Amino acid sequence: MPPLFQRLPVLDWGRRYTRASLSADLIAALIVTIMLVPQSLAYALLAGLPPEAGIYASILPILLYAIFGTSRVLAVGPVAVVSLMTAAAIGQVAEAGTAGYAAAALTLALLSGTMLFTLGALRLGFLANFLSHPVIAGFITASGILIAAGQVRHILGVPGGGGTLPEILATLWSHLGETNMVTLALGAGALVFLTWVRKGMKPNLLRLGTPTRAADILTKAGPVFAVAATTALVWGLDLASQGVRIVGEVPQGLPPLTLPDLSLDLISALFIPAALISIIGFVESVSVAQTLAARKRQRIDPDQELLGLGAANIGAAFTGGLPVTGGFARSVVNADAGAETPAAGAFTALALAAAAVTLTPLLYFLPQATLAATIIVAVLGLVDFGTLRRTWAYSRRDFAAVAVTILATLTLGIETGVSVGVALSLLLHLLNTAQPHVAEVGLLPGTEHFRNIHRYKVETHPSLLTLRIDESLYFANARFLETMILDRIARSPDLRDVVLMCSAVNSIDYSALETLEGLQTDLAAQGIRLHLSEVKGPVMDRLAQTHFLQHLSGQVFTSQFDAFHALTAKPKP
Amino acid sequence: MPPLFQRLPVLDWGRRYTRASLSADLIAALIVTIMLVPQSLAYALLAGLPPEAGIYASILPILLYAIFGTSRVLAVGPVAVVSLMTAAAIGQVAEAGTAGYAAAALTLALLSGTMLFTLGALRLGFLANFLSHPVIAGFITASGILIAAGQVRHILGVPGGGGTLPEILATLWSHLGETNMVTLALGAGALVFLTWVRKGMKPNLLRLGTPTRAADILTKAGPVFAVAATTALVWGLDLASQGVRIVGEVPQGLPPLTLPDLSLDLISALFIPAALISIIGFVESVSVAQTLAARKRQRIDPDQELLGLGAANIGAAFTGGLPVTGGFARSVVNADAGAETPAAGAFTALALAAAAVTLTPLLYFLPQATLAATIIVAVLGLVDFGTLRRTWAYSRRDFAAVAVTILATLTLGIETGVSVGVALSLLLHLLNTAQPHVAEVGLLPGTEHFRNIHRYKVETHPSLLTLRIDESLYFANARFLETMILDRIARSPDLRDVVLMCSAVNSIDYSALETLEGLQTDLAAQGIRLHLSEVKGPVMDRLAQTHFLQHLSGQVFTSQFDAFHALTAKPKP
Repeated sequence: MPPLFQRLPVLDWGRRYTRASLSADLIAALIVTIMLVPQSLAYALLAGLPPEAGIYASILPILLYAIFGTSRVLAVGPVAVVSLMTAAAIGQVAEAGTAGYAAAALTLALLSGTMLFTLGALRLGFLANFLSHPVIAGFITASGILIAAGQVRHILGVPGGGGTLPEILATLWSHLGETNMVTLALGAGALVFLTWVRKGMKPNLLRLGTPTRAADILTKAGPVFAVAATTALVWGLDLASQGVRIVGEVPQGLPPLTLPDLSLDLISALFIPAALISIIGFVESVSVAQTLAARKRQRIDPDQELLGLGAANIGAAFTGGLPVTGGFARSVVNADAGAETPAAGAFTALALAAAAVTLTPLLYFLPQATLAATIIVAVLGLVDFGTLRRTWAYSRRDFAAVAVTILATLTLGIETGVSVGVALSLLLHLLNTAQPHVAEVGLLPGTEHFRNIHRYKVETHPSLLTLRIDESLYFANARFLETMILDRIARSPDLRDVVLMCSAVNSIDYSALETLEGLQTDLAAQGIRLHLSEVKGPVMDRLAQTHFLQHLSGQVFTSQFDAFHALTAKPKP
Repeated sequence: MPPLFQRLPVLDWGRRYTRASLSADLIAALIVTIMLVPQSLAYALLAGLPPEAGIYASILPILLYAIFGTSRVLAVGPVAVVSLMTAAAIGQVAEAGTAGYAAAALTLALLSGTMLFTLGALRLGFLANFLSHPVIAGFITASGILIAAGQVRHILGVPGGGGTLPEILATLWSHLGETNMVTLALGAGALVFLTWVRKGMKPNLLRLGTPTRAADILTKAGPVFAVAATTALVWGLDLASQGVRIVGEVPQGLPPLTLPDLSLDLISALFIPAALISIIGFVESVSVAQTLAARKRQRIDPDQELLGLGAANIGAAFTGGLPVTGGFARSVVNADAGAETPAAGAFTALALAAAAVTLTPLLYFLPQATLAATIIVAVLGLVDFGTLRRTWAYSRRDFAAVAVTILATLTLGIETGVSVGVALSLLLHLLNTAQPHVAEVGLLPGTEHFRNIHRYKVETHPSLLTLRIDESLYFANARFLETMILDRIARSPDLRDVVLMCSAVNSIDYSALETLEGLQTDLAAQGIRLHLSEVKGPVMDRLAQTHFLQHLSGQVFTSQFDAFHALTAKPKP
């Protein structure tokens, strides 16, 4: 494949586009659009932005992703976790509802887009791997709880706020007496209806003989029904006069051309949040894209995905949007609806543009409680405490990382939570390698294999100690190993030869080299020779550049079997 | 050994103390005291404190270390790098020369002592291993340059200041016209004399027939000669009236009982600097103690050393001192002079106490230029750019860590420098493990061993791919490996079996387990079975707790040879 095609996947799939794909993509686009209209409005409100920002953020970004991205079915737009992170970030630099607030959202999208695009151009997508799966799972679960808790105030019709669970609950509690009963009735009704749509409607429709495809479309359209019904109620019964908060005027028309505020103060204040949003958005999006691609034996290219998401966010910044990424639910719907190429995304964008031009006046009486119910039902699907149980069963270290990430996100806020999770998982990994497993091994009789003397019945020899070091040697564990080996040697007075079996030593850094040199000197003074066996090619190449091998009192054996044979076969005088 | 003895080494060596040891220890104490008097004054001034603080910091701390420490010869007191770090830390909270400044030094010593003692009690000494040797070497070299540059102003007799090399040089340059020629003559003379004492005096004395022991004592006494001669000159010629800055009044008497300022503001401001001082002081001290112990086949216990250094610093905090640690030069002198037990340290403390009571009035006319010359000659011995050359030859990663640490320390200051060094060496290590080496291996003919197909002539089979993974599997590399393996498989259409040879896989975390499960599903869909071989005991124990092994399409082989035999011997239908 010529390099240009690798950068612009659209040139690849676009040339082979067929009529059958067109029809599949059009149907998928219709279903996704029905789902996206209420979601876009809801996530814009979650970010503290006017509802139209959510629609705008789903038009140009989707088109740009269709050109640059590698996933056939990823649907890009505002998503719950990123919208919450957006609210947390720009809430620190501007007051919600002001012009400065919307402008800051654009700057955040531009910063995030530029970071993602740059990382993609430098092919640094692997950096996202430094987020461990359980930490991400914990973070998403905690974010879902935070988001749902934050929306309860819209269901009750009371003021609210706060970035942590205790703050959110305290604010709710103090305003509980001000609950607007009409809002609560609307919101609770929408909640019950949407939960039923999600869980119970499709089986019922199928039982009533509805064709599967139609049942699918009706299920996805659930939020649209809720929006239409509650809007009609508010309009018909004039509920706005009874204190039900409504969306109000939504500008009619195509997305405006916007220029993000590029003042240095704003950029430096939003830099770290943009980096966190980029990495969380990227990791989420790539996971979704990989899962859906694997279903159809397709591959996605993480670096190309960075370019696609980067372009999408830059597009959002110039068309009145907010930070976007690939959404889980909408991408699954897109795939299930039969989307075959990114053209489905392009058609979705066109349909949303048409909606922005024609449908927005109908949203005037839409109650905010309905949008809050949409968000709550969507994000509670993200909450999964199963990771806690599974990691507990497998490894206390992974469990600790998840548990602390969840607690930190809930009690210290979303940005601190993800930072704590990343730092903790790295720290635990390092601590693990700092005190590595070292096995004393012997020959498994009748074979050429060496195994732990405590797990197998193996042959050993009193003058020979063989230690298999189960970790790369580097500064954090070099001294620990030296102490361990010297302590072990002190217990064996007849020792003449020590072999370090290096089959699991994948690198030796300069600190460890110095430690080995010191160990060799200490052993030589006690009349003990130091040998190495099964040294890997790359490690040997590096050692060969030093004086260590020349000064070695013993030998370097290709295999541990050779070492055992040579050092025990001929008894020494 | 009963636990109490382990905590109080003095009870161990004290019971077996002999007359011969007493005489050896007394001689060593005399030599070290001669060396310590000018050094203690000099390092107190380097820390911005009155000169007597240096003497006080060498009395009770030495006694406490003799009780708690494990090294027979370590000499504890103010040292150059820690004094510079002290100046940097307390310079941020108080003005040099004020009472608040001296009080902050006490708080810093108490904080550092408490941290060291706590780490020792919790047996967390291994945490110091997270500082890589080359990073420490680079940090010490850069600190030596910073200290020497900072003392030049005392040789010139001009005002100065600044925490980074550019700042120090700029200040020096701007005051160069104000150079005091008399001070310069005294300072330069002391510098030349001390350099000659260090390099040329001992060979000359030996050539003139001086006995070795006497030549040694004379050499160590060099700084005392310089102090005496220049003090006499200043007094005799009344040079203070010509602008030569002198030490002035030094209180006569034993160390006072001081109570550190424990205000929360001060503690929170000094917490991070105290942590950095603790870790640098501990690492330096342990390196010295280990080097000297190894010479005599003795062992030191790092956790017990933490208790010893912690007690010493707490002692310094209550007797008008400053943060202390084991010094390299004085410990070597102590060992060379024949010290046999920590009692040598106790005698040094007594001798210094006597000096504090009797000799301090004689220091009135001591010029600061002489102390500056003592410091410069001492710290230039710490400067060693050889680490740069040696790490360059061995590993670019280690070289980068050293070079950046040196540059950061020189240009951003001493605290930033050490933090950057630690962070960078951890980051480089993590990046190294994030894209691990994976070797495709085959059977070395006539053996049971498997080697890289690109390095050895080995047997392979078209339906079998064996990959040896040279790294533990964890979140940072799991996805990289999955991509690598899937890409490799795509190039071999005849593949039926993939074996992952896990001899170098020392752990598999939860993220990696999920990745393996995904890989197994992907391979199964392509009709390829996934096998494991040579899985280590601890890894197998953990996998056995999961469903992974039940769902595995292939087998787990004890040895790669068994796997090769079983999967290639019987051709499949």
